[in-house]
Amino acid sequence: MNILITGGAGFIGSHLCDYLLADAQNSVTIVDNLSLGRLENIEHLLDNSHFNFVELDIVKNVNLLNEVFQQGVFDVVFHLAANSDIAQSHANPSIDLNNTFLTTFHVLEQMRIHGVKQLVFASTSAIYGDTPEKLHENYGPLLPVSHYGAGKLASEAFISSFAENYGIQSWIIRFPNVVGERTTHGILFDFFRKVKANTGYLEVLGNGEQNKPYVYVKDLVEAILFVWQNTNDKLNYFNVGVDSQTKVSNIAKIVLEEMGEQREIKYTGGSRGWVGDVPFFSYSLDKIHALGWKAKNTSDNAVRIAVRENLRLFNRLLHK
Amino acid sequence: MNILITGGAGFIGSHLCDYLLADAQNSVTIVDNLSLGRLENIEHLLDNSHFNFVELDIVKNVNLLNEVFQQGVFDVVFHLAANSDIAQSHANPSIDLNNTFLTTFHVLEQMRIHGVKQLVFASTSAIYGDTPEKLHENYGPLLPVSHYGAGKLASEAFISSFAENYGIQSWIIRFPNVVGERTTHGILFDFFRKVKANTGYLEVLGNGEQNKPYVYVKDLVEAILFVWQNTNDKLNYFNVGVDSQTKVSNIAKIVLEEMGEQREIKYTGGSRGWVGDVPFFSYSLDKIHALGWKAKNTSDNAVRIAVRENLRLFNRLLHK
Repeated sequence: MNILITGGAGFIGSHLCDYLLADAQNSVTIVDNLSLGRLENIEHLLDNSHFNFVELDIVKNVNLLNEVFQQGVFDVVFHLAANSDIAQSHANPSIDLNNTFLTTFHVLEQMRIHGVKQLVFASTSAIYGDTPEKLHENYGPLLPVSHYGAGKLASEAFISSFAENYGIQSWIIRFPNVVGERTTHGILFDFFRKVKANTGYLEVLGNGEQNKPYVYVKDLVEAILFVWQNTNDKLNYFNVGVDSQTKVSNIAKIVLEEMGEQREIKYTGGSRGWVGDVPFFSYSLDKIHALGWKAKNTSDNAVRIAVRENLRLFNRLLHK
Repeated sequence: MNILITGGAGFIGSHLCDYLLADAQNSVTIVDNLSLGRLENIEHLLDNSHFNFVELDIVKNVNLLNEVFQQGVFDVVFHLAANSDIAQSHANPSIDLNNTFLTTFHVLEQMRIHGVKQLVFASTSAIYGDTPEKLHENYGPLLPVSHYGAGKLASEAFISSFAENYGIQSWIIRFPNVVGERTTHGILFDFFRKVKANTGYLEVLGNGEQNKPYVYVKDLVEAILFVWQNTNDKLNYFNVGVDSQTKVSNIAKIVLEEMGEQREIKYTGGSRGWVGDVPFFSYSLDKIHALGWKAKNTSDNAVRIAVRENLRLFNRLLHK
């Protein structure tokens, strides 16, 4: 198959790329503006004749995107390009307008123009907003509290109308927090930096009681491919994740253990880490479990593996 | 109050303007690009010292919009500017990207920048998509089939995140089909034109069985104001409409009766009038009824009044 991955040099996209290239029948083109993605994530693929990397910003360079579609004759697009630093757009909502939503619209337009018939989309639990209710796929109302969640919901909305209007078969996969090798920001990196700053204590935003499911990146990528290969509706939508959760206070403890450091943990207080944070959620995975997929790693396990993998990268970046 | 109405020269916006100016305490500014809005709808207001009209396109002229906000010091924005010709964006989805969604994003940004604290938003039953289920406000999944529905859902998504991030109190009012004085397009005008073309028969798109609620525009405007004045959550969302429905075949009959014409009615067949059409829906109004509002006119009644009012405009436009 001819496959396009947007955001393919990113954390999740580069893992997906590895999985898809393991099948010698596949050719994979990735586009990435390298704002959050990193060349290092794909440099082991640059010599692969089935692999093609185009550095481009989807929103700023629609003409080049059009050329990529013209040349690629893609069978399927995995659209992962998005802002993934949720907290930063509080000060500038245009970040999520452009990088989370308009990327999707432009990809959809190119698919319509070039007749590409399959789209797999990286969505998020953040579309559901902040609610104590169990989040199954048919939950409503959808009232996202972050611009990131809003940009993803806006993306889902147009994916739905493009699917209906032009017969683009689509798979919407809603991720919770994802952890593992190749991340460069987020809670684990924040903790690493704070420990290295060596203030004598580790400051944790909020009261430490935030409790969420963390899925290991390779489990997630397997789920994405599993859903894509095993469902065939015009529009398929699935929550993906783990049915366990990890408290922020526990993440802090795991980080200190794995770094071999001792610190007093100080909490800034309040139920949320930052505006737009969803401090708790309970995710229904009945739909994907019924399809026959379950994550190999629990949330705690995912966090511990991720801390080990991320620490290696953190230390390497530190000594650069 | 200082009030801004976007799309204020349009069908619904101009009626809203009349209602708000009936209170001498209010000053109303409207912005409209006059693409679907018409100067004729507001010309009776141009001498009113409490009324101010600025012709501008929200997406193309953000600088002028910024000036309007700078000078207006608004207490509340009623955001109605949108594409309202749903069928036309099948061939060009950018129409709803720009006119239905990006208008909303730019209005939200100006509200954030200028500290405006209240937003009333014209949303739509089209956000729910095409489903046989009864559409209550918490229905999910939200899978719109038209780009118009997608643009409105995308708007709701960012209204929700702006409400959370910047404390903009918001009212989302979801309209069904709206009919009455000052419309210039849609099913009634299509029928008028076809009858005047005098082909010996009246062609109706679909099988005539499409069955939807039609609300009279003045009932709708009263509902918008009622919800705004009687609810006070951070984010308030309501279906508004009538609990009766009118079949397309019945609309055709009412049109012929009111025009005093006889025609054979020919149906093109198929359950939908056009791609993105939602042929049936059943709307739950329990929430707004519980709040104490109910439409004065049934759906059939609304259609008949609208046919009479629209015919006057149609004939005038015909003889211009």
